[in-house]
Amino acid sequence: MYSFRSKKNKVLTVPGYLFSATSCGLKAKGKLDFAMILSERPAKATACFTTNRFAAPPVEYGKKILKKSYLNAVLVNAGNANAGTGKLGYDSVIQVAKRAGLVLGVPPETVLVSSTGKIGRQLPLKKLLPSVENLKDSLSAKSSLNFAQAICTTDRWPKVHQVKVKVGGKSFHVTGIAKGAGMIEPHMATMLAYIMTDLDLNLPLMKKTFKEAVNQSFNAISVDGDQSTNDTALLMANGSSGLSLSSTQSPGFAKFREALHEVCHHLALSMIADGEGATKVVEIQVQGAKTEAQARKLAYTVARSQLVKTSFFGQDPNWGRVLAALGYAGVNFNPQKVDIYYGKIPLVQGGLPLGDKHEKQAHRLMKQGTFSVKVELHQGKGAFRLWTSDLGYEYIRINAEYST
Amino acid sequence: MYSFRSKKNKVLTVPGYLFSATSCGLKAKGKLDFAMILSERPAKATACFTTNRFAAPPVEYGKKILKKSYLNAVLVNAGNANAGTGKLGYDSVIQVAKRAGLVLGVPPETVLVSSTGKIGRQLPLKKLLPSVENLKDSLSAKSSLNFAQAICTTDRWPKVHQVKVKVGGKSFHVTGIAKGAGMIEPHMATMLAYIMTDLDLNLPLMKKTFKEAVNQSFNAISVDGDQSTNDTALLMANGSSGLSLSSTQSPGFAKFREALHEVCHHLALSMIADGEGATKVVEIQVQGAKTEAQARKLAYTVARSQLVKTSFFGQDPNWGRVLAALGYAGVNFNPQKVDIYYGKIPLVQGGLPLGDKHEKQAHRLMKQGTFSVKVELHQGKGAFRLWTSDLGYEYIRINAEYST
Repeated sequence: MYSFRSKKNKVLTVPGYLFSATSCGLKAKGKLDFAMILSERPAKATACFTTNRFAAPPVEYGKKILKKSYLNAVLVNAGNANAGTGKLGYDSVIQVAKRAGLVLGVPPETVLVSSTGKIGRQLPLKKLLPSVENLKDSLSAKSSLNFAQAICTTDRWPKVHQVKVKVGGKSFHVTGIAKGAGMIEPHMATMLAYIMTDLDLNLPLMKKTFKEAVNQSFNAISVDGDQSTNDTALLMANGSSGLSLSSTQSPGFAKFREALHEVCHHLALSMIADGEGATKVVEIQVQGAKTEAQARKLAYTVARSQLVKTSFFGQDPNWGRVLAALGYAGVNFNPQKVDIYYGKIPLVQGGLPLGDKHEKQAHRLMKQGTFSVKVELHQGKGAFRLWTSDLGYEYIRINAEYST
Repeated sequence: MYSFRSKKNKVLTVPGYLFSATSCGLKAKGKLDFAMILSERPAKATACFTTNRFAAPPVEYGKKILKKSYLNAVLVNAGNANAGTGKLGYDSVIQVAKRAGLVLGVPPETVLVSSTGKIGRQLPLKKLLPSVENLKDSLSAKSSLNFAQAICTTDRWPKVHQVKVKVGGKSFHVTGIAKGAGMIEPHMATMLAYIMTDLDLNLPLMKKTFKEAVNQSFNAISVDGDQSTNDTALLMANGSSGLSLSSTQSPGFAKFREALHEVCHHLALSMIADGEGATKVVEIQVQGAKTEAQARKLAYTVARSQLVKTSFFGQDPNWGRVLAALGYAGVNFNPQKVDIYYGKIPLVQGGLPLGDKHEKQAHRLMKQGTFSVKVELHQGKGAFRLWTSDLGYEYIRINAEYST
């Protein structure tokens, strides 16, 4: 199994970016809970936010300031999501941004603020605001892992990944830091991902390439089908490498695209592996649908089926549950053409089962921590793949054993 | 809590209908697993079947024969769903219907055949066919509970309900027998419901009234969002009471409609209460949406959220999870107008929480076996309500602890 756990002592540096983290009392036991990224020069920026109708105030604020498409800094607190907090919650975001702007000497509207943790509680500004100065004072190129740890909530490990690329004697980096493990905790959690590069990028190209990478990574994972009020994925490009990409034809663009996809993919799968009580990471591939949209719908219906997910947990090659989920996805297809594979093992051909021998092979495959389920519809060229986790006792324990 | 468990010794009789059940070795330990309903005169009939693309052969056959809209008999086996069995499985259905037709002296195309149990295995005709004669020989007006027990799979109790109605000195009955407890078992299960009345009914009126009742009962429950390949709800009307309803204006129609709704509602909620490891039956009401379709979408998104369902299990009034589920339902509404109630206790008003005191009250309410969650959007007149269960350890145990 590909390891999604980050090596503990791995220090990721990205030219032109500084990091810091501090404890201001939002988490128990003096754990790191407030963190900062500073780009030494203004960075072009683009972000994908949650589409939840109850988007939290920091997301509303982020959407607004990112219309200008550049940032100097990012501040993130864990322990309080500042969601369901209304106008007062929005004012709190502005106060954090203003204080950071003052301390760092940059316009407040170039400071993105993110929050993750409990919802329905106002941000404790008395704890946060005095700590902004601390964050500035402790900025360092080598503190990326502190940042990664500070933004965690119930994550079992911090999530970081970096790709270094050489182009014509020069080099650039794509570095990502994320948190998220499904929607967790008494009052839920959030996916946050910050990707930094020292490239300079043409802004429309940057937006388009990031959107594509997000769709194939963070938007192609399904832990429990729930979506947080605070989800944010950010890409910053500050040009510190001296390299610039202006079009898809620029030398190095293909490598940048590949590196960006790798970083996003790694972080997304690390979240799945860290999903609430997850014991499996399962790739769901749907091929041969009439359209990509239909393939997507089928893949998500399979990935969200509680019956399918419990069968993954039980290592039971229950193709019947996969078949039933395909059947109620609301997509029109001919069931008599459907093949289902677990890994490379065919279990269903032309809508009919292939028997016990194949199921026993598939059962052995499912003992692995990661495997794939492939559905071939033979009805077109539409394809989609996503990653999901299993559903076991630990999910129930984490999500139910709490009482207000 | 309203009791959905049927009284063990309650014998339901319906004029003009006979029942029987036998054991033919599909279930272990000689349990009843094959059963029959015979209408003493041809009954008008209408049915709602699964919309799953992988509809099982008995469903395909049922759809075909019910185009003629009358039935003499129903045969049901438990222990084998005859699903994922292709052309051979379809031939098996025809053989069972033919044998029943021969034995009972009725056209085979007036015999509905249903199956529930494991999928992907051919029906053992050697066991079933010789037992048809036994079923005929043991037919009795008083064997409805035997029928109810025979069709159970992992149901914890048989599901029966009857309403007797008096109209102008005469009386008629609406009697329902059902099985189902979510999708269960290694290779899943099914919802089957057979409703019988001794009224004579105008066929279009019968179809319309049944569809409405099914939509508000069997189609308004959500155990795990999964839908079986074999789901069937049938209404038969044989006229044995001597009463006839030809239009919505007929005397007694309103009472019939009410009785039909009550029977369907009772059976549907009995399934929820018997849901896999369910400890709660929760009514989800969405009001004030722009349209009924939007209200329905919102209600189902809340009911299907694993996070919401685990919070019901944990008796945690986690309005934040309800709010988040509403937010990602893909429905356009103004979050700042949303109120959420648990029972009569308001937890969210205008999109903002009302505080700990209310949450403590709601926690006490949730200790009950049944309660409601109401969402008021204040944006129109669209309303929908459905019933769901919680998600606890027992669901995982039932669905995961199986290995091929």
